[in-house]
Amino acid sequence: MLLRMSSLFVRTLREDPADAEVDSHRLLVRAGYIRRAAPGIYTWLPLGLRVLRKVEAVVREEMDAAGAQEVHFPALLPKEPYEVTGRWTEYGPNIFRLKDRKGGDYLLAPTHEELFTLLVKDLYSSYKDLPLSLYQIQTKYRDEVRPRAGLIRGREFVMKDAYSFDIDDAGLEASYQIQRDTYRRIFERLGLEYVIVAATSGAMGGSRSEEFLTPTPIGEDTYVRSAGGYTANVEAVTTPSPAPIDFADAPAAHVEDTPDTPTIDTLVAVANERFGRPDRAWTAADTLKNVVLALVQPSGARELLVVGLPGDREVDLKRLEASLAPAEVETATAADLATRPELVKGYIGSAALGENAGTDAKGAPLGVRYLLDPRISIGTRWITGANEPGRHVFDLVAGRDFLAAGQGGAANTVEAAEVRAGDEAPDGSGPLELARGIEIGHIFALGRKYAKALGLTVLDKNGKATVVTMGSYGIGVSRVLAALAEAHHDDAGLAWPAQVAPAHVHVVATGKDPAVFEAAESIATTLSSRGIEVLFDDRPKVSPGVKFADAELLGVPLVVVVGRGLADGVVEVRPRVASADADAPQAEQVPVADAPDRIAELLDALLPS
Amino acid sequence: MLLRMSSLFVRTLREDPADAEVDSHRLLVRAGYIRRAAPGIYTWLPLGLRVLRKVEAVVREEMDAAGAQEVHFPALLPKEPYEVTGRWTEYGPNIFRLKDRKGGDYLLAPTHEELFTLLVKDLYSSYKDLPLSLYQIQTKYRDEVRPRAGLIRGREFVMKDAYSFDIDDAGLEASYQIQRDTYRRIFERLGLEYVIVAATSGAMGGSRSEEFLTPTPIGEDTYVRSAGGYTANVEAVTTPSPAPIDFADAPAAHVEDTPDTPTIDTLVAVANERFGRPDRAWTAADTLKNVVLALVQPSGARELLVVGLPGDREVDLKRLEASLAPAEVETATAADLATRPELVKGYIGSAALGENAGTDAKGAPLGVRYLLDPRISIGTRWITGANEPGRHVFDLVAGRDFLAAGQGGAANTVEAAEVRAGDEAPDGSGPLELARGIEIGHIFALGRKYAKALGLTVLDKNGKATVVTMGSYGIGVSRVLAALAEAHHDDAGLAWPAQVAPAHVHVVATGKDPAVFEAAESIATTLSSRGIEVLFDDRPKVSPGVKFADAELLGVPLVVVVGRGLADGVVEVRPRVASADADAPQAEQVPVADAPDRIAELLDALLPS
Repeated sequence: MLLRMSSLFVRTLREDPADAEVDSHRLLVRAGYIRRAAPGIYTWLPLGLRVLRKVEAVVREEMDAAGAQEVHFPALLPKEPYEVTGRWTEYGPNIFRLKDRKGGDYLLAPTHEELFTLLVKDLYSSYKDLPLSLYQIQTKYRDEVRPRAGLIRGREFVMKDAYSFDIDDAGLEASYQIQRDTYRRIFERLGLEYVIVAATSGAMGGSRSEEFLTPTPIGEDTYVRSAGGYTANVEAVTTPSPAPIDFADAPAAHVEDTPDTPTIDTLVAVANERFGRPDRAWTAADTLKNVVLALVQPSGARELLVVGLPGDREVDLKRLEASLAPAEVETATAADLATRPELVKGYIGSAALGENAGTDAKGAPLGVRYLLDPRISIGTRWITGANEPGRHVFDLVAGRDFLAAGQGGAANTVEAAEVRAGDEAPDGSGPLELARGIEIGHIFALGRKYAKALGLTVLDKNGKATVVTMGSYGIGVSRVLAALAEAHHDDAGLAWPAQVAPAHVHVVATGKDPAVFEAAESIATTLSSRGIEVLFDDRPKVSPGVKFADAELLGVPLVVVVGRGLADGVVEVRPRVASADADAPQAEQVPVADAPDRIAELLDALLPS
Repeated sequence: MLLRMSSLFVRTLREDPADAEVDSHRLLVRAGYIRRAAPGIYTWLPLGLRVLRKVEAVVREEMDAAGAQEVHFPALLPKEPYEVTGRWTEYGPNIFRLKDRKGGDYLLAPTHEELFTLLVKDLYSSYKDLPLSLYQIQTKYRDEVRPRAGLIRGREFVMKDAYSFDIDDAGLEASYQIQRDTYRRIFERLGLEYVIVAATSGAMGGSRSEEFLTPTPIGEDTYVRSAGGYTANVEAVTTPSPAPIDFADAPAAHVEDTPDTPTIDTLVAVANERFGRPDRAWTAADTLKNVVLALVQPSGARELLVVGLPGDREVDLKRLEASLAPAEVETATAADLATRPELVKGYIGSAALGENAGTDAKGAPLGVRYLLDPRISIGTRWITGANEPGRHVFDLVAGRDFLAAGQGGAANTVEAAEVRAGDEAPDGSGPLELARGIEIGHIFALGRKYAKALGLTVLDKNGKATVVTMGSYGIGVSRVLAALAEAHHDDAGLAWPAQVAPAHVHVVATGKDPAVFEAAESIATTLSSRGIEVLFDDRPKVSPGVKFADAELLGVPLVVVVGRGLADGVVEVRPRVASADADAPQAEQVPVADAPDRIAELLDALLPS
C-alpha cells in the first residue's frame, strides 16, 4: 500500500480546533483523521478510517479466536422489545427516539441486549445449542447530555458488543472469563495500558460487572486501588457499615443554641467553644450533614431526596446516581425546596426526615425520602440541625432518634459520600489510592434479566424449559482509538503504535532535487512491494519544515527522510516516538541501498509478533 | 477458515416466511442469512454477513483501484446542510427525521451529497487539489412508503456512495467515465448481469444520469431497449413531439351529441357510428383523454393537475412523477374533484383547462394546471370532451383551441403516457422492447447544484474562485446481494457465485460411521489449511436428507459428500448450480486421497481469475 501525500485527502491544521478539550481530540482533528459533523458526531477521513479499521480488525480477530460469531444488527429498531425490558423508559432522554411515517416508535439503539436475546430465541431451542457467543461491530447512538472530548464521549460511535448465552451459572462464569481474557489480549495487542476494576451495572442490570479502564488524567472515570489488589470504579466502592452500638446508656438528645452556624466549619467552631468535651475536640466527622437533592426519574418525575452523611464528606453525585439508576440526581433548586418549607436551610434536622418524622395535622407523612451514609450506623451519636435557625441537636442517636426511610438496622443506606485517598479498602486490603481513567471496555454477567423478560428459554437435559443466562461485553472501538491517541502523543503530534498506525513508514522527500524524489519514490515503491504500508510525502512544493511537522503530527511510527544526505548516499530513518518515551530509539543514517532492509527490520521490532 | 454446522449460528427453515414476495427474500430468510427486525429492516446472521462483506470487498477494491479514497460519514446528521440544498423539504416523508434532547432537528441520511461537499470545502481550496474522488460504504436510511422484497427495498440498507469533484465539465466527464467503467468491472466480478440505461435524476438533480439494472422479472424498474442500442429506464424515455402542423385550413371545432360515452371505447364506437369519416375509422388514438390527478408537494400541499394524452395510452404514474419530482402524483379523490365542480366527469374538455380557459366572474383563472403529452403538438386535431354530459368536441386543434399551462409551442408538455413495446426509440434506432430490472447502481453527473448551494469553490489557475462540478455514484450493496440471490437460485435454494459465497466448499459427513466423520474432518481441515473456506456439516445426529437439503438451500458452490462411498475409497464432489443452468458440471466420484487437489482445481475454475 502506497499513499501519496500529493493526492491523499488530508489537510493538517496548525491551529487547535476551538472545541477541543483533550489532546486526542485536538490532534486527531489537526492531523486530519476526523472532522466534526455535529456535536458528538464525527466524520472519518481516510487516515482516521484506516486506524479505526485496524483497531476493529484486532477486536474481530480476537473475538473470532474466542469462538464468538459475528452478526450485524440494525441501528434503527422498533421500541417494543425495549419496552418489554423497561429500557425504553429507563433510558429517558439518553436515547434518540423517532417516529416513522406511520407513527411507529423507533429508537437508535444504544446497546442490543433485547435484539440478541430475541434472535437466539428465534433460532435456538435446546441446551445442546449452548454455550453460544455472538458479537457485532456496529454504530451505536446515545443522546449524551454533554458530548465531549471528541471521540471519547460521542453521540454516534463504533462499538463492539458481544453476548453470551448459557444454560447455567457455571456456563455464564466460564463465558465471562473467556471474554475477560479476550479483552486482556485485545488491549495488550493494541498497546493500550488497562486496569480491570469492579463496576456497577447501572441500567444494564445483572449480578456482576467489571470495567476495563485505561489510566489517564483526562479520564471521566475515577477508580481506586489498594496495595492488596482491590480495584474498583469509585462508583462501585462500598462502605462497610460499623456494627450496631448499644445505645442504652447514651444520654438523651439535647437541643442547644448554636447561633450563626449554617456551615459545618462554623458549627464545629461553636461546638468546641461552647460545648467542648474533655476527651477530644469536636470535628466535622462528629456532625451529620443533611444534603437536599432532587431525584429525577426517567419519566421526568421529580422528588425531593435528603442524604445524611458525616460532615467531613461531600456528596459524590456520580456515586449516588450509580446507586439510584436509572434515576438521575440533581442539586435541589429553590423550587424544589419550596415544596418543603418546614426544612430550615442550614439547620435541617434528621428528626424531621425519614420514616419516623411523624405526620402533619391532616395525617400526611411529614418525612422526606431520607437515605443515610453507611457510617451513620445504629447507635452512632451525632450533632445535627434542630430544624430551627441557630440551633443544633447533640447526642442524636441513629436508630433511636431518627431512621432512614425504611431503615431496618442499616438496610436503607446509600453510597453517596465521596471516596477519598487513604480510605480503607472494603476488603481490608489497605488504604485506597485514587486515579482517573477512560472506560474502554465493560463486561457484565447479566444473568437472566433479559432472557426472562423476553422469554428466551431452551429445553434442558430433562426436556424442561429453562431460562437462559446471559452476559454482555462491550468495547468502545472508536473510543479506544481516541484512548490510543491520548496514550501515544506529545506536543508535536501523534505517535501511533505500529499495529494501528495508518501506515508503517512515512517517506519524506525534501528539497527540489529530482534525484531526491526519484530515490524516495524508489524506496517507497520497494517497501510497498514488500507489503509494508507506506505514506509518501511526494508534494513537490512544500518546505522540509512543513513536511517534518506534518510527519510528527500524523504519527506514522517510522519516518524516512530522503534529502541532502543523498549526496553522501544515505537517508535518515527516524522512529516517531512521543517525546516522553525515554527509551526511544535514535535516528540513524542508513545507506540508500540498505534502506529497505533496515526499515523492514526496524518495523519488525515495532510490530507485535 | 472452517465453519462447523454443529456450532454455527444458523437454522434453516422449511417454511417460507409469510411476508416474502420474492425468491431472494424467501431463500435468504429460509437459509438463515438474514432475519427481519422491523419492516424493511434486517439483521445479518453469520453467513449473510460473510456474503455482504465479500460484496463490499469487491466494491472497495475496485473503488480503490479507480483512485477513489474511502472515508466514513455519520448516518445521524443535522438538518442545516440539507435545508440549504432544499432536500430537507424535498424528501418529504421519505426520510427519517428526529430531534435530539435539545430540540435540534436531525435526519438519518438517505445520501450524503451535502456532507461530502462541505468536507471538500473544509479541506481543499485550489484547482491543484482536483480531481478528487471520495467514497464510503455506509448504512443509509429511507422511510419507504412500502418496504418490500426483503433487502431489495429496505428502510435501513448498506450503500456505497462515491462523489467526484472537478474544476470543469471535461473533468466531470472523465470522472464520470472512470466510475462508469469501475461499475462495469464491479458487476462483472460479482457475476451479476447488468444493463446500463439512461435515467432521470429525480430529487438528486444534475444534468445526466444512468442506471445499472440487473434484468429480472421481479424488478421494480421497467426499461426499454432498441435493436439499435438505445436503452433507458421507461421513466427517462422521451417522446418526440411532431413538428407543428399548419392549421389555417382546419375546420372550426364543433360540439356533437355523443350520448352515454364516458369512456374512450364508447366514444370511439359512437363516433364511428354517427360521425364516421370516409378515409379511415376513428380510433382511440384520435381522442384526447384528460386525466385528473392530484399533485402532492413534499410540504404536503395538494393541487389538482390534469394530464391530456391520446386516448389509446394510459398514464404511467412513475413516469409522470419522474417529470415532476420531488412532487408525487396520486389519483384524484372525490374531495379533489369537488374543488373543481365545473369539470364534468367523463366529458372533461381541454377548453376548460390550461391557460386559455378564461376567468370566472370575479376574475380568478378558471384553468386547472394542465400538462399535455408531447404527441398533442401544435396543429393536431382531436375529439375530446365538451365538458357537458353526453357531448364531445370534434376537430379541436391544439394551439388554436386549447393550450397547456404556459404552453409556448410544445414547451409545457409532460412525459406521462405509458411506453409500450413497439414504440419507436426516441433516437430512431428502432422499435422498443420492454423488460424489468432491479436498480443496482446509479451514476449522476450532478454538475454544480450542490457546490453552488453550499459554496464549494476553489481558486482556478488565474486565482479566480470557481464553483466545483460534481458527480455522485451509488451502489446498493445490500440490494446487490439480494440481486445475486435472485439471479442464482432454484427451487431448492441458493447457488452463490464462488466469489461471494459464504464458503467455498461445503463438506457433508453422512451416516453414523466414525470413519466417515474422521475422513470428512481430514478433508475439511486440509482444505482449510490451504486457504479454502470450508463449511463443514459435522452434525452427528442429522439425517443425510436434511444435510443435503440444507446444502442446497445454503448454496455453497462445491458440495463434498463423505458417506457410503468411503468404503470404496471415494467421496462425491457436487457443484451446487441452479437447476436452470444447462451447462452445469456433473457430480463426480473422487478418490479420497485426491479429493483436496481435485476440489481446489474445481474451485479455481469457479473463482474469477
